[in-house]
This record gives sequence, C-alpha cells and structure tokens, in this order.
Amino acid sequence: MKTDICKKLGIEYPIFAFTHCRDVVVAVSKAGGIGVLGAVGYSPEQLKEELDWIDEHIGEYPYGVDTVIPQKYEGMDEKDPEQLLESLQKMIPDGHREFVEELLSDNGVPKAPETNGPKGGLLGWTEATAEPQIDEALKHPNVKLIANALGTPPADMIKKIQDKGVLIGALCGKIKQAVAHKEAGLDFIIAQGGEGGGHTGEIGSIVLWPQIIDAVDGLPVLAAGGIGSGRQMAAAMSTGAQGVWCGSLWLAVEEAAAQPAEKDSYLNATSEDTIRSKAWTGKPARMLKNKWTEAWENPENPDPLPMPLQGMITFDAMRRTSMYAGSGSTQEVSFNAAGQVIGQVKQIESVKDVIYRMINEYLDSVERLNSLLPKE
Amino acid sequence: MKTDICKKLGIEYPIFAFTHCRDVVVAVSKAGGIGVLGAVGYSPEQLKEELDWIDEHIGEYPYGVDTVIPQKYEGMDEKDPEQLLESLQKMIPDGHREFVEELLSDNGVPKAPETNGPKGGLLGWTEATAEPQIDEALKHPNVKLIANALGTPPADMIKKIQDKGVLIGALCGKIKQAVAHKEAGLDFIIAQGGEGGGHTGEIGSIVLWPQIIDAVDGLPVLAAGGIGSGRQMAAAMSTGAQGVWCGSLWLAVEEAAAQPAEKDSYLNATSEDTIRSKAWTGKPARMLKNKWTEAWENPENPDPLPMPLQGMITFDAMRRTSMYAGSGSTQEVSFNAAGQVIGQVKQIESVKDVIYRMINEYLDSVERLNSLLPKE
Repeated sequence: MKTDICKKLGIEYPIFAFTHCRDVVVAVSKAGGIGVLGAVGYSPEQLKEELDWIDEHIGEYPYGVDTVIPQKYEGMDEKDPEQLLESLQKMIPDGHREFVEELLSDNGVPKAPETNGPKGGLLGWTEATAEPQIDEALKHPNVKLIANALGTPPADMIKKIQDKGVLIGALCGKIKQAVAHKEAGLDFIIAQGGEGGGHTGEIGSIVLWPQIIDAVDGLPVLAAGGIGSGRQMAAAMSTGAQGVWCGSLWLAVEEAAAQPAEKDSYLNATSEDTIRSKAWTGKPARMLKNKWTEAWENPENPDPLPMPLQGMITFDAMRRTSMYAGSGSTQEVSFNAAGQVIGQVKQIESVKDVIYRMINEYLDSVERLNSLLPKE
Repeated sequence: MKTDICKKLGIEYPIFAFTHCRDVVVAVSKAGGIGVLGAVGYSPEQLKEELDWIDEHIGEYPYGVDTVIPQKYEGMDEKDPEQLLESLQKMIPDGHREFVEELLSDNGVPKAPETNGPKGGLLGWTEATAEPQIDEALKHPNVKLIANALGTPPADMIKKIQDKGVLIGALCGKIKQAVAHKEAGLDFIIAQGGEGGGHTGEIGSIVLWPQIIDAVDGLPVLAAGGIGSGRQMAAAMSTGAQGVWCGSLWLAVEEAAAQPAEKDSYLNATSEDTIRSKAWTGKPARMLKNKWTEAWENPENPDPLPMPLQGMITFDAMRRTSMYAGSGSTQEVSFNAAGQVIGQVKQIESVKDVIYRMINEYLDSVERLNSLLPKE
C-alpha cells in the first residue's frame, strides 16, 4: 500500500504516528511507518535532547516533528519570545491561577520541582516560540517531515523547511483551512475529523476526508480522527487518502513513557468518555472527561482564557499531573488528550504488534471488499 | 456487492434510503436499493394513503417503513392514544406555545388550514401512536423491512413483525444500544454516527461502525451518518458493514416532494451549517442551523421540552413551514433535518443518477485500494 507520499519519505506503510514520546517515534519508524514527535511542550533545549536521542536510536529511518502555530492567538504580532511572555502574563486574571491551584490541591496533586521547560508555561504555540523548535528540527538530518497544527505556517517558515528538502504539511478540520494550506504551498494536508484527539473541529471524519481530498485536488491528504485499526485505515484509504495519521493508538503502547496510572486511564476509557473542551489550551481539543473538564465546562466557574493564555495557567497542572500521575486523584485533573477511538485501545501492545495488526486488518478489509464484487 | 441482507431482501445494491417522500421510496427500490418511508409524521390514515400509493407504483420491488419509538419519553406508561394525548397536553407550559407562535409570525410564516394529520401534534413517537403505524405497514405485502429509531421496539411488536416474515431493525449511536437491540432479537442494526441527520448521538461514524459491528458479532449492521458518495460507501463497507443507510442524499433529488425553497436550503448548505439540537423534538437531532435553532439554543429563551412534548408544540410550525416553504423568511424557522454530508449535495439529480454514481464511485474506490496492494 505504498502511496506517493510513502515513496517520497521512503517508508513502507502509510501510517503516520503522532506522539509525545521519543521511544514511540523510533519504534514506529523502525516498524515501517513514520513517527512524528509533538514538540509543543518542549523548550528548544529539551527538544534538542529528544531529537539527539532519536537520532542515536533510529538508524537510517526517517521521522517527523509536529509544531503548533495557531492561525489566531493573543499577542500574535509580537515576534520576540521574552516580550511576548511579558505582555501575555499581564493579561492573566489572578482568579484563574487560584482556580487552577484549588483544583489541583483538592485532588491531592503534589507540587513539583522546576525543570528547564518552557519559560512561564508559554509553550511552542506561538510563532515566536515555535520558530526555534523548527530551527532545531532542521538540524537533524533524519527529520523528513514537519507538520503544523492549528494553522497555515508563516511563508518564511515554509520556505526554510522546503529549502532543506523537508516536507511541510498542516492539520485542518475545515475545507477552507485546507485550501489555505494548499495556496500557501504546503506539501501535504492532514484532514482531521472532530472525533480526533487534541485540537479538533466539528466535522466528522467520514464527511471531512473526501471533501478535503477533493478540495486540494492532487495534494496528498492524510486522514486523521478515529483511526485505530486496519479496518478504519482501509476506510480512510477508500475515500482517497494517501495515508493515516494516528495519535490515540500510541498512548498506551509498551514504548510510551506514560506512567501506569495514565495508561490505565486510556485503557479504561470508552469512546463515550471523551469531550471537546477549551479546558486546557483555550482552543477546543478532545480529551478524556474528568473533574478538570467538568470544572471548566461549568458556567459558574471561570471561563477558559484564549490561547495561549489558558495554556500558561494550565502548564504547571500538566507538569504536576504528568509527574505524579498515580498520586491521589491526579487522574481526575490530568490532561489526557485522546480521540474517540481510544475506546478501542484495550491492552498494552508493542508498537510493532499494533502496526502489523493494522496491516493485516487492512489487507483483510480489502479482501472482503473484493469478495463482495459482482463476479464477472 | 450483494451482502447477506441484500439477498434476504432481494435487492441489488446495499443502499438503504431513508426518506419522508413516497416518490423517493419508489425510485430507490426501482433503481436497485431499497426505499424506507419515515412514518413518524403521519396519522395512520395518512400512512395508509402513502403506502397504497407506493404499492401502486413500486411493482414487485420491496420497500421499508421507519417508525420512532424512543427508549424513554414522557407518558410512556399510557398505551391509549387519546388518554396519552390528554395527559401530555396538560404538561405543556403556555409560554412555550406563545414562543413558537412569535417565532413564526416574526418570520412571516402564514397560518395554515387543518389537515387530517396526527391529533394534537402527537406524532408516531410513542408506543401508543407507533403501533397503529406498524399495524398498517404490515398490511402491505411489499413492506419487507421495518426500522425503529431511538430505541429497541417492544417485544410484542418485534414478534408481530417477524411473524409476518418482515425484517425488523433499529438505529443506534452507542454500543450498549446495539447490544440491547441484539438481545431483543432484532434482525439487523443501523449504526449511525453523530454526523448523521435527524436524531443522532455523539460518536463519529468512523469510530462507531466497526465497534458496533464487533459488538453485535454476526448480526448485519448498516452504516449510517455521513454517507453521500460511493467513496464513503466503500469506507463503510471496509469496516465490515453490510450496507449503507443514507438520508441527506435524498433531500434534494428530483423525485423529492419538497418545495424549491426547501431544496435550495439543502443545496446551499455546507457541512458546517448543521447543528445537533433539541429544538424540534426534545431529543438531540441534527438539522440545518437557522434562526429557529438559534432561538432554542439561546439560554435566555425557553428550554426545549422533553419528547414528545416539544414535538407537540412544534408540529404546527413544521406543518406551516413545510406548506409555505418559500414564503417570507420561512426557511429561517423551518425544520431542515440533515446530516453533515448535506455539504456534498450540490445539485438536483434523479435518484437513479445518484445511485448509479454511488455504485461507480464505489467500484473505483475498490479498484484504487487494489492498485495500492503490494505486487506479488
């Protein structure tokens, strides 16, 4: 099932694995797909460490990096990271920080020591903070693909990436975003339906995929949102996608660095246990429902702030709930981003087993379709 | 692509067309699929007229009838239609009727003469009002299939239907509903993803279909929600569905009895123009967004009443907006049920053209999947 984009990237299977975990990146690329590391939560120094580690372990296989530059965010005219941070910090009401602290302490989440993470909790979701990530990524020769979530990347970044011979694509959940991506000269599009995890729109995958494939006429489209098996992969490829972009599938694999309590949250979730909420980043993202999402969805409590402000006040919560995942009722206030397909993740498997199972299921699906064709 | 359920029903293509229009039922069945008439809005006398007309025009082809008996509704212990109506009418606050009247008059919708429609606006969405519909349907020998929306039908209805050699199935949007359907002995399941039109759940089609197929192990599953092309049909069949259940696709066909203004509303809608709202029936249903849905979604206005009360106060609005579809700004307060796939309906075509196009696209999709297989 090698599609054109597989040939360009030199990969065996059209399986694109979005993950926050370097071990998963390596395992996916080695199994014939391509691992893509989500960079948004790393400072440039941390990102360098992660990519150096991947370089040491991945051999000759290619991999990718995922950044998050939104189309719109508070302070978007400011390109200097320090200035931006200063002006953003003034925009955060005290009550919001107190509300976060209360939620954490009510659920027994311990305080955590400082790390060399992003300053002031301002993650890579601004142009000012994402550009250093892209500059770092481009120093690593096996990085063959960069994907941007939430918007069309700025023209100079696109040029910088393509000049290095690296493919640049971006996610979208609406036709008009896909068309904007194409007009900006991107190399591929990731069409993510509303059932997907993380930042996501409202149009269902089965409706969105073929519409975007037609709208960008000829540009490779990867299907995202709701793909957790080879049957779903075959469905995506039937609509004309050149590959599948999966995230939830890797949350509880053997190689994922997540703590057991976090993996348990994913393994125990059904497809009905997710919610699309602004509770963590200020833009709608799909995640497991818990007391944290309930609290922010409750109209009597503070409203989530616009991006990137909400992320700045939730960054400490993310860090602490991730560090002490198994402590007290931490899982009740953790950020467990996941798509509806999480309901299909029922056991811990190795990345290789997941990929081989997908390929086998895919081949069975195609065989089944063939068996239904009228006999000539 | 004849699946087992096609063979049982004696149809050529696994395309199940839900429609409120008898002409569409006939055209779909004659083109090789099977038309299913939505009965909920008809009094038993009106339904008899519609089914008699279909019998006269459909020749030897089979067709189906769709009823709506919800799992839960107000007054569900009352089996006598007259008593039920009386007790329900007492439960409706005056303010709600006034709010409806104001919305209609503000948008220039004329008053309409009485017809022989359901008494008091109590449609077929109670056991008491649906049973006479089923009794009527079973008098028509070409009715080979009955489908129930919103719940598992009562055991005596299932028996009555199966005793006549008619297949009985039901819609669902969650695994546990599908399992309840199977346990009740239904012959098939319709798994409808949240992108679908009319009453619908929250799980996306691509996630829901394979999960339900696995959960009812062996029972035929029809895929619904987001199918408007042969590519989407191939996607559904890839996941293991035995057929596709489409509704939005027939809203603006040549044969549909809808008025030009109503067809225009559908033709002009994009996939982003629908909303899942309780505004018409009291249970979440997907429809085109307009001033009516905005008004009921506004927290400052009256809340929608529970089913079937909301339907009783909106019945007159449905009748008037349908009768005077092109008058004033009637479309702004019309009930235009539609799934997200409505964005793909861009021109008026005949049913036959739609079905043949779907089949061709389907075959192309399978061919494309085959062309991607590794050469042996």
